[in-house]
Amino acid sequence: MRWVGLLCLASGWGWTRVPAPARRLHQLAAMGTVSLVGAGPGDPSLLTLQALRLIKNASLVISDRLVSPEILALVECELKIARKRPGCAEEAQQEIYDWMAEAVRAGRNVVRLKIGDPFLFGRGGEEVLHLRSMGIEPSVSPGVSSSYSAPLAALIPLTHRGVSSHVMISTGYGQDGAIVDVPEYKTDLTVVLLMAVGRIEDLALRMTRKGFPGRTPVAIIEKATTPQQRILYGTLDSIGEVAQRENATAPATIVVGDVVHVLTPGNELAP
Amino acid sequence: MRWVGLLCLASGWGWTRVPAPARRLHQLAAMGTVSLVGAGPGDPSLLTLQALRLIKNASLVISDRLVSPEILALVECELKIARKRPGCAEEAQQEIYDWMAEAVRAGRNVVRLKIGDPFLFGRGGEEVLHLRSMGIEPSVSPGVSSSYSAPLAALIPLTHRGVSSHVMISTGYGQDGAIVDVPEYKTDLTVVLLMAVGRIEDLALRMTRKGFPGRTPVAIIEKATTPQQRILYGTLDSIGEVAQRENATAPATIVVGDVVHVLTPGNELAP
Repeated sequence: MRWVGLLCLASGWGWTRVPAPARRLHQLAAMGTVSLVGAGPGDPSLLTLQALRLIKNASLVISDRLVSPEILALVECELKIARKRPGCAEEAQQEIYDWMAEAVRAGRNVVRLKIGDPFLFGRGGEEVLHLRSMGIEPSVSPGVSSSYSAPLAALIPLTHRGVSSHVMISTGYGQDGAIVDVPEYKTDLTVVLLMAVGRIEDLALRMTRKGFPGRTPVAIIEKATTPQQRILYGTLDSIGEVAQRENATAPATIVVGDVVHVLTPGNELAP
Repeated sequence: MRWVGLLCLASGWGWTRVPAPARRLHQLAAMGTVSLVGAGPGDPSLLTLQALRLIKNASLVISDRLVSPEILALVECELKIARKRPGCAEEAQQEIYDWMAEAVRAGRNVVRLKIGDPFLFGRGGEEVLHLRSMGIEPSVSPGVSSSYSAPLAALIPLTHRGVSSHVMISTGYGQDGAIVDVPEYKTDLTVVLLMAVGRIEDLALRMTRKGFPGRTPVAIIEKATTPQQRILYGTLDSIGEVAQRENATAPATIVVGDVVHVLTPGNELAP
C-alpha cells in the first residue's frame, strides 16, 4: 500500500498543460486524454514512477515498435503497436493519429509510449502540434533517454574531467531520410549518434573528414539495458567493418570519443 | 503488493559490475556496497523504479546539495548532504569519499544520490575511479537528466523536424572553474547549458561572437519539475539582463535555439 500511496502522491504536479478553451471542450464532450510518455531504454526498472502510473491508468496504450517486450508486458489495457518501418513511416504515423483521435472521442485515456524520451529525437513535438490540430492538448512525460543511459549501461560516462566537457547528440537520419551533417572535431567533445547503426560506416568516414582522428574510440551499444544487450568496440577507422561483421542492428546507441575507455581500459581489444 | 512485486521484479538485471577479485574481497570482509544513483530533475515521480528501490534498500544515503526536498523526504535511512558549495568543492568531495569508505567498511549499503544523471555532467566517472582506488566497485543507475527534462517541463522539444536535428549539451564551468568554449553556430543546433546561470551574460556574448544571431531565443528553466519551477525567456542579446533582473539562480537549465518557441508561440513576451 505504501507504494500505491507514493505513486499517487507523485502525481500531484504535473505535465498536463491544457489551455482554457481546450479544457472546456473536454468537459462538454467528455473527451479522453493523451499522454506522450517516455519508456526509457528498455529495462522496465528504468521507467519513471510517473510513466508506470500513466500506463497503469490508461485504457489504451499505443507503443512504438522498439519498446521492449519487458515493458509492454506491464500494459494491462488494450495495446496497439505502431507499424512504423523504414519506407512507410508517414502512413503508420497517420494510423497512430487516427487511433488516438478515435480513442479520445470515445472518452478513453491514451498513453502514447515512445522509446527513450519523447522530446529528444522522439518527434514528440510533431505529435503535440498534430494533436492540437485535432483539438487535443496532450500531456508529456519524460523518459530516461538512450542517448546517455545506453552508454552508462556500458560504463561510459559521456563527460569526464580532463577528457570531455561537451556532448553532441545527433542522428543518422534527418528529415525524410536526408543525410545529417556530422559535427566538427573538438578534442573535448563526446558524440552520441542515435538511429545511426545502419549508416555507421558512412558517418565514421564523414567524421574523419571533419578532423576526428581515425583512432578515436567508438562503442555501439545494442539493445541497451535489456537481457540482449551487446557492446561492440572499434575506432572510427574500424567500426564500419566491426558493425558489418557482427551484424549490428537497431535499437543501438553509438558513442564516439575518448570517454569510451575511461572506465574500462582494455576493452579496446573486444569483441 | 502488486507494486512491491513489480519493483522487485524490475531489479533482476542490473547495473552492478563487480569484477571477480573485488567480489571475493566483499565476501571475505562483509563489505557494503555503493550505488551512484541519478535522482532526476526534482519531481519525485521522475525517479526511476530502480532508483526508488535502491533508496528504499539503502542504509545510508549521501545526497548532493541540490536534490529536491521532495525526493529527500523519501529517504527512510540515515541521510547525509554534501556540503559542496562554490569555492570548497574539493574538500567536500573528499568528505563524501570518507563517508562512503567508512560506511562500506561497516558493511552498509550506500546510495550516492546525484541530481539528474550521474554520467552526464554528474562527475560520476570520477567517483567510480576514486572508489576503485579505495577497493570499492560501485554500481551506477541512470536518472532522468535535467538537460532535456527541464526543457520538456517548459514544453520545449530539444529536436524538432525542420528546426533542430542536433543537440549540444555543455556547461558554464569547466575543470577547476575554467571557462568552457561555446559551440560554433549551426542553424539546426539546439544548445543546452547546465550549471551556467551565473555566467549566462558572458556565455550569451561568446555565442553571438561564434555566429549565433543575437535574436536567438533563450529559455532559463529554474528548479524544473518542482513546485517552485520558473521559466524566464529572452534572446541571446537580452537574457543576461533578464537573468539579473529576475535574480535567476541554480539549479537551472538553459536552452538556446529556435525550438524554444516551437510549441509555445507568444511566450517571447514573457515574463
